[in-house]
Amino acid sequence: MRKTTARNAFYAQSGGVTAVINASACGVIETARRHKRQIANVYAGRNGILGALTEDLIDTGKENAAAIRALRHTPAGAFGSARYKLKKFADDPSQYQRLIDVFRAHDIGYFFYNGGGDSADTCLKVSTLADQLGYPIQAIHVPKTVDNDLPVTDCCPGFGSVAKYVAVSIREAGFDVASMARTSTKVFVMEVMGRHAGWIAAAGGIAAEKAGDSPHIILFPEITFDEDKFCARVKECVERYGYCAVVVSEGVRNAEGKFLADAGTRDAFGHAQLGGVGPVVAQLVKSKLGYKYHWAVADYLQRAARHIASKVDVEQAYAVGKAAVELAIKGHNSVMPTIVRVSDRPYRWKIGLAKLEDVANKEKMLPRDYITADGLQITAKARRYLAPLIKGEDYPPYKDGLPQYVVLRNAPVRRKLKAPFTI
Amino acid sequence: MRKTTARNAFYAQSGGVTAVINASACGVIETARRHKRQIANVYAGRNGILGALTEDLIDTGKENAAAIRALRHTPAGAFGSARYKLKKFADDPSQYQRLIDVFRAHDIGYFFYNGGGDSADTCLKVSTLADQLGYPIQAIHVPKTVDNDLPVTDCCPGFGSVAKYVAVSIREAGFDVASMARTSTKVFVMEVMGRHAGWIAAAGGIAAEKAGDSPHIILFPEITFDEDKFCARVKECVERYGYCAVVVSEGVRNAEGKFLADAGTRDAFGHAQLGGVGPVVAQLVKSKLGYKYHWAVADYLQRAARHIASKVDVEQAYAVGKAAVELAIKGHNSVMPTIVRVSDRPYRWKIGLAKLEDVANKEKMLPRDYITADGLQITAKARRYLAPLIKGEDYPPYKDGLPQYVVLRNAPVRRKLKAPFTI
Repeated sequence: MRKTTARNAFYAQSGGVTAVINASACGVIETARRHKRQIANVYAGRNGILGALTEDLIDTGKENAAAIRALRHTPAGAFGSARYKLKKFADDPSQYQRLIDVFRAHDIGYFFYNGGGDSADTCLKVSTLADQLGYPIQAIHVPKTVDNDLPVTDCCPGFGSVAKYVAVSIREAGFDVASMARTSTKVFVMEVMGRHAGWIAAAGGIAAEKAGDSPHIILFPEITFDEDKFCARVKECVERYGYCAVVVSEGVRNAEGKFLADAGTRDAFGHAQLGGVGPVVAQLVKSKLGYKYHWAVADYLQRAARHIASKVDVEQAYAVGKAAVELAIKGHNSVMPTIVRVSDRPYRWKIGLAKLEDVANKEKMLPRDYITADGLQITAKARRYLAPLIKGEDYPPYKDGLPQYVVLRNAPVRRKLKAPFTI
Repeated sequence: MRKTTARNAFYAQSGGVTAVINASACGVIETARRHKRQIANVYAGRNGILGALTEDLIDTGKENAAAIRALRHTPAGAFGSARYKLKKFADDPSQYQRLIDVFRAHDIGYFFYNGGGDSADTCLKVSTLADQLGYPIQAIHVPKTVDNDLPVTDCCPGFGSVAKYVAVSIREAGFDVASMARTSTKVFVMEVMGRHAGWIAAAGGIAAEKAGDSPHIILFPEITFDEDKFCARVKECVERYGYCAVVVSEGVRNAEGKFLADAGTRDAFGHAQLGGVGPVVAQLVKSKLGYKYHWAVADYLQRAARHIASKVDVEQAYAVGKAAVELAIKGHNSVMPTIVRVSDRPYRWKIGLAKLEDVANKEKMLPRDYITADGLQITAKARRYLAPLIKGEDYPPYKDGLPQYVVLRNAPVRRKLKAPFTI
C-alpha cells in the first residue's frame, strides 16, 4: 500500500538539453506545488541522475514562485543534465541499490525523469527494480528530445523549437544569398543536428512555401548521399533561381555507410576531421561546380534558441510536465505522458498516455513517404505533420536588449547518507 | 542651376547585405514618396550598381505602400546587392560615362548608394565625375555595414542587429553548455564575422554581465593569437566555472600574421582548408587540454537574422534612409547621414552629417581600450559603447510560425538606351 501522507518527488533532466526542457521542469514543480497533500517537496538531481547517485539533491522548494515561473522561458537544463546511462542491473546492482538508498533516505515516492529514449529505459528500470528491491516508487517519464524520435507520442517537446529555429534561419539565409548571388555567393549550406533521423533537417523544408524558395535541397541521414545527383540539382537551382540553399543533416552518409563529416578533413597534424558535414558539402560544390559558397553550422545554437521557440512546443513541454505529476497523483507508474494529435488543421492536440515498455529503446524514424522520391525534399505529408509544431511565438522577457533567463539558487538538500558513491 | 521640376532618384544596395538594409530602402522610398514635387520616381538598381551599368532599373513606384512598408521588417537586399567595385576613372572612364548615360536617359537627379566604405568611395566618385562630365546629380551615401567600420558615424546600421544576434546566441549556448558540462561538452566555440575588425566579436561580450557568465573568452582580429595564453585561460574557466564559452572572430591571426582559419585543415584531396576558425580553435582545445568541445559557425545566419533584430538598429537604418532623401531635397551633395550619439544612459541619438571625402576608404578599428589588457575580453568602455546598440526588439510579423518577409515585384523600367553594356 502506498502511504497516504505526502512523500517527496525526485526530478532530473537527462541527455542533451533543449530550449524547452525547463518548461517541463516548470510544469512538474508548479503542479507539484498545487498538490502538497501528496507531494511534499520536489528534489531535483544536480546534473541529472548523477545527483541521485551522489545524493546531490537540489531543494526546489527554496526557489520562489517567480523563479520557477521563469523556467518556462529559460533554455537548457536549470539543474544540470547528464549523459550517463545506468549499467544493466546484472552488471552493476550497486547503482540501483544506491538509488534506492538515496530515495529511501529522502522519502522519495515519485521519480520524474525528463529525457529521451535512453532515459525512458532508465525510468522503466527504476520502476521495475524498486519493486524488486522492495521500495515503493512511481516512475514517470517526461518526454524531451530535439531528435523527435520517441515512439507513441506524436512529437517530442524540444523538437518544435529546433524545427522553428531551422526553418526561420534557412529562410533568412535564403533571402541573404538570393540578394548576393549575382556577383558573390551562389550556394549556401546549413548543417543541422540529427545524427540518426532526419526530423530536424526535414523541418527546414517548411520554410519553402513554393518552388524556388529556400531551402532548395535537404540532405537526410535516411538517404545515401549521391554526389552526382546532388551536384546536378545544385546546378539546376543556381541556373533556375540564381542560387541554391541546402540544409544538411550531420548524419548524412555516403554509399560506404561512412558519415560524410568523417570522410573529409584532416587537420594540420593529420588528426581526424574537425567535424562538420556542412563544410564538406560546400567544398564539394566548389570543386565540382566552381560556385562560390558559404556554410553555417548551427550546432548548440539551434537547440538553445529559446528566443525563437515555438509556442506550441513551449505549451506541450509544460503540459507533459504537468501531466506527469497528475498521473503520479492518480497512482500511475511506468508511464509517460504523450502528445496526441487530434487534428492537423486547425491543429489540436491533447495529452495521452504510453507505457514505458512501449517507449524505451525504440526510435521513431522519419517515414520514407515524408521524403520526396528523389530524396532531396520533403513531401506534402511531411509538411502537414511538421507545420503545426512551429506555430506561434513565445518570446522571453528582455532587459537592455538581452533575454532574461533565470539562474536558480539550486540550494542543496542536506545529505543523510554516510557512504559516498563514486561515479 | 538645379531644375525645379521633379527628377528621378536612383537607389542601390551594395556589398554584403544586413538584417536592416531594407529598412533603409524603406526610409528612402517612403520619404521620396512624400516629396513628389522634387522626386518623381525611385528607380532601384537590380543587383546594385550593376543595375545602373546595364540599365536594369526597377520601378519601385509599381510597389504598393504595404510592400514598401514590409521592407522595414525584411532582411537582405530586396533589389539585389552586388560586390562590384568601379575601376578608377583613369583606368576605365567608359564605366562612368555609361553611368551618366543611363542617368541622363532616365533623368536621374539623385544617387542614393546604400553600403559600406567602398561604396562611399563609389558614391564620392559619381558625385565628382558627374560634375566633370557635365551632368548634375546629387550623390548621397546611406551607411550600412555589419562590420561597423565606417568613420565619423557613431555606429553603422546593420551592426546593432548582428551584435544582438551574437550576444543572444552566445548567452543561450552558454546556458546549454553549462548544463551539460559535468558529463559532456566543456568548451563551446562560436565563430563570428569580422575579418578586419573585432566589433562583432566584441558584441558577444555584452552577454556576460558578471564573472563566470558566457562568453568567457573573446578572440579578436586585433590581438595576435597566443595559444598558450588562450589554453591557460580555457583551463582556468573550466576549473572555475565548469565550462568555457568562446567567441572567435573569423579574422584571428597567429604570430606569423596568417589567419588561424587558413593554418589548419586540408581536405581529403589536399586542398586548402574548408574554412572556419571555430573548428580550428575547438580542435586545439581538444588536443592540448583534452576537453570535449562543440563549435558553431553562424556565418550568414548572423547578418540575416531579422527575427532578432535590434529595435535601435532598425530605427537608425530607417532614419538614415529618410535623412538621405531629406538631405538631397535640401540640396546636399557628396554627403552621408550619420548617427550621432547624444548620451549613453539613457541612450539618445540624432542624425548628423559627414562629407564623403571624410568617410570614403577609411576604416574605424576597434579601439585598443575596448579590449582588456590580457586581450581576451571587452572593457567597461566597450560595454558602454555597445550596450545601447542592441536595445529593444522589433519582431517581424509571423504567419504559421514563420516570419513574413516581402518579395517585391521588382518590375523593370523600360530601357531607353540602344547600346548594351557588358560587365
